[in-house]
Amino acid sequence: MDVWGRPLRAAEWQEVILRAEAGEFDEPIWNVDRGDSREFDAIFVGGGAGGRFGSAYLRARGGRQLTIDRWPFLGGSCPHQACVPHHLFSEAARELDLARWLSGRLWFGEFEDKRASILELVELFRSGRNSAHSFMNWQSKEQLGMEYILNASATVLDEHTVEVAGERFHARNLVLATGARTEYPDIPGIDLPGVYDFASLVEELDYEPSRCVIIGGSKVAIEYGSFFQATGCPTTIVSRSPLMRTKSLHHVDEDLRQFVVDGMRKRGMTILEGAHPVEIVGNGRATGVVVRLADGTVETLPADFVFIGTGERANSAPFVEALGVEVDERGFIVVNSRMQTSVPGVYAIGDLIGAPMEMFKARKCGMTAARNIMGEPYEFDFSEYPDFLHSTYEVTWVGLSEAEARERYQNVVVIQMPPPGVDPGEIPLPCAEGSMLYAFTHPELTGFQKCVIDADSRRIVGVHHVGYGAKDAFQYLDYLIRRGLTIDDMAEMNELFLNPEHFIQLCRLRAGQTQLTNL
Amino acid sequence: MDVWGRPLRAAEWQEVILRAEAGEFDEPIWNVDRGDSREFDAIFVGGGAGGRFGSAYLRARGGRQLTIDRWPFLGGSCPHQACVPHHLFSEAARELDLARWLSGRLWFGEFEDKRASILELVELFRSGRNSAHSFMNWQSKEQLGMEYILNASATVLDEHTVEVAGERFHARNLVLATGARTEYPDIPGIDLPGVYDFASLVEELDYEPSRCVIIGGSKVAIEYGSFFQATGCPTTIVSRSPLMRTKSLHHVDEDLRQFVVDGMRKRGMTILEGAHPVEIVGNGRATGVVVRLADGTVETLPADFVFIGTGERANSAPFVEALGVEVDERGFIVVNSRMQTSVPGVYAIGDLIGAPMEMFKARKCGMTAARNIMGEPYEFDFSEYPDFLHSTYEVTWVGLSEAEARERYQNVVVIQMPPPGVDPGEIPLPCAEGSMLYAFTHPELTGFQKCVIDADSRRIVGVHHVGYGAKDAFQYLDYLIRRGLTIDDMAEMNELFLNPEHFIQLCRLRAGQTQLTNL
Repeated sequence: MDVWGRPLRAAEWQEVILRAEAGEFDEPIWNVDRGDSREFDAIFVGGGAGGRFGSAYLRARGGRQLTIDRWPFLGGSCPHQACVPHHLFSEAARELDLARWLSGRLWFGEFEDKRASILELVELFRSGRNSAHSFMNWQSKEQLGMEYILNASATVLDEHTVEVAGERFHARNLVLATGARTEYPDIPGIDLPGVYDFASLVEELDYEPSRCVIIGGSKVAIEYGSFFQATGCPTTIVSRSPLMRTKSLHHVDEDLRQFVVDGMRKRGMTILEGAHPVEIVGNGRATGVVVRLADGTVETLPADFVFIGTGERANSAPFVEALGVEVDERGFIVVNSRMQTSVPGVYAIGDLIGAPMEMFKARKCGMTAARNIMGEPYEFDFSEYPDFLHSTYEVTWVGLSEAEARERYQNVVVIQMPPPGVDPGEIPLPCAEGSMLYAFTHPELTGFQKCVIDADSRRIVGVHHVGYGAKDAFQYLDYLIRRGLTIDDMAEMNELFLNPEHFIQLCRLRAGQTQLTNL
Repeated sequence: MDVWGRPLRAAEWQEVILRAEAGEFDEPIWNVDRGDSREFDAIFVGGGAGGRFGSAYLRARGGRQLTIDRWPFLGGSCPHQACVPHHLFSEAARELDLARWLSGRLWFGEFEDKRASILELVELFRSGRNSAHSFMNWQSKEQLGMEYILNASATVLDEHTVEVAGERFHARNLVLATGARTEYPDIPGIDLPGVYDFASLVEELDYEPSRCVIIGGSKVAIEYGSFFQATGCPTTIVSRSPLMRTKSLHHVDEDLRQFVVDGMRKRGMTILEGAHPVEIVGNGRATGVVVRLADGTVETLPADFVFIGTGERANSAPFVEALGVEVDERGFIVVNSRMQTSVPGVYAIGDLIGAPMEMFKARKCGMTAARNIMGEPYEFDFSEYPDFLHSTYEVTWVGLSEAEARERYQNVVVIQMPPPGVDPGEIPLPCAEGSMLYAFTHPELTGFQKCVIDADSRRIVGVHHVGYGAKDAFQYLDYLIRRGLTIDDMAEMNELFLNPEHFIQLCRLRAGQTQLTNL
């Protein structure tokens, strides 16, 4: 179908996407300005987070782009299989957790062990995800002026040529943006029905899991595991490394890690660290996972639901084949800080170039490619960034951990809640929106936070928070910390009390000191 | 009792405070260093937010202070009667609202009209508030090294002398910090049982309200009214001005106001704007409120619970009498930007000097007084600040409204969600933590936001948000906006997706433009 020059409302887009997904038509959706004779500055192969943001930026700069996606919508896996369902499930986990702790109190009814249906939540997501897709098609077309071809595979022929539905398109540059997928461990039984990753979960789940084993200790493992457990599905995580001690989660202190992991255990999860999966056993569907525990013993964990929470690998094979583009040992395309690959005129962005598999990185990679393509030398360094995950909490951190800071600076001062040595059950801090009901019923559950300061320069070098409602602020704290934010700057700010992280007012309690001390 | 030199744990403090509140002892709690012969640099009369933070700052600067409070704890009305219960009740309102919209879906049971007990929540707060008090006594003593006398009235004799329990204390300066209280309208029946304000509500409520009328349209009226309604207590607000159109809530655009006020109506509240209370009628307890409506008709609104949500007036009378300190027509003490009153050596801070009645102001007033007392010329201008309120949403804003920006700048550009002209039911944006369940069930409920930009300078001049989880960020956005934050700076930041306010990525979609346009 051709939609060029024909405004479609979000609701009309939703109809189109639903029909395409139902297999009611398989031809491409063309949104291409056939009357524009300009050469494309870039073709974006993949219209996910990076491809869409790169396309928008390139258009805004006055360039001409074409974005191609195999799905009938732009936005990629985030709203379809990844960040959005994860956030929906994490919100459900948080609400279920509250309902469990307050069982039989206030207006909360008695909490039954098996309270919520994973399948029902997956179906809720599946039934509603197209509203985000349709919005992005609408926005990209009507507000951002992008050209795109959806519901169609792109075949890269050379560094200037892409074929779609038998038609060839030429461009000055290519931007590769086809993402990554879960890397399944190579063990017997891995192909059994009943084994899922975050993508196949939302696409394929068709029964109610009653016992879960998660293989892997990634962020995804923690997040989805906390959700499964919160619904009342007993969940075991089988992880080689201690949770949150993987290289990809840098800057995590042991005390924050303990609060989060202990919190997961307190909620009934089984966490087997130093354990290796050996085999998935089953009988037409998975019935258990054989694991070798840290002490060497081998055990079979019963499970009718196995979830793979290991790492990801890149969808780079077609580009290696067509272009000979350089990749690393895990298949991720190698780029420089301008997102340029080993092949001149070919850029790669997003998950396709490796960790971190985060939206800010994908989108800013897209922007970086667009700026360079439009003649503006621009580099993007994503070696340092704010990070987060969900358990039934929102866990956020940026900058150095306390341990890292102590290695780097002589005089490190920490402002922490609850303060070291104070029993968390004695004080309901930190707390704010989201933890008020805990503050008055289970003060030990409100959260944990710390602010790490180099006392000599008075600069804030790291901030860490477990609770609710602080994540948004960490984006700005990242920016401010990079620019030398001091405890004195913090003391000057105007807090909105009760603020979820109490850094501003806590800093003010100490900022009067010439020689800073802990709080 | 004398606690000087005797460390008390938070749990021990709680015991002391409970006994004092139960009337088991009425002598002062002395935490005064009798062995220190230095003169006090300041006596803080009142140990609430401003008094405690001022005291901490003065101590940190090496000064000596004495803080006196009539209550057996430091921290003042915030944790005892104001911000903390308000946040607890607002969290309850948010959870109840969710339970109502999702009634009978997912794991939520059928929602009954009268679902929650106001009295039970008040009692929950009352039973737990002392843990915050005890923490502040502990922190102020053990971590901040403050001297204080609690559970004792202070009588100011002259600008250097305060009497407590018959003992006189002298200081170089006085800092007055005794706060404000609700100003009741002068109408017949106002003294009837069944008439409450936010303070007496938590102290005195002893029955379950079944129908509420709120007199006044302040922030407190909106916040408490939304809570009462959410519990299932039908609530009517009687306000002279349109809600959120009062002078004290500056920088609020009409579209944001509409989203919030329409949301309150959608949840069943009755909002009578342009209405005046004439009389409270009753029969041993309030049974109704007689009001003159905007059209001049007079009506009696039935109510067994009347809540006063008008403004506040200062507790300044004793100081006018003892010191002749200058006050304004509403009794607020007049100060300059250093918190100096008309009497040399006498400072006043916090709610006692007038609006805004916010924690950042109280605390920073205390810091300002402390710095000036310690010889550092320091001024505090609180004419501009970030602001928030709760309905069942968290509503936050800072900087200019769109209307204000259009008056000041030639080319104003707005980035808004949902975008103008898009039906909020068609797209579930903005959304993130706290609105994910709405996104997939009631997309029109997820929220509203806008970012206002001066297109010529590219500076962000105002940001506005209705939803959840953005409040914390607005503290830093206030700081950044004051320092000239541009759309280009925003585009460079690292968002944590799904971030509650989508400003960073939305700015990035437009920042490539030389001539900015709306989004």
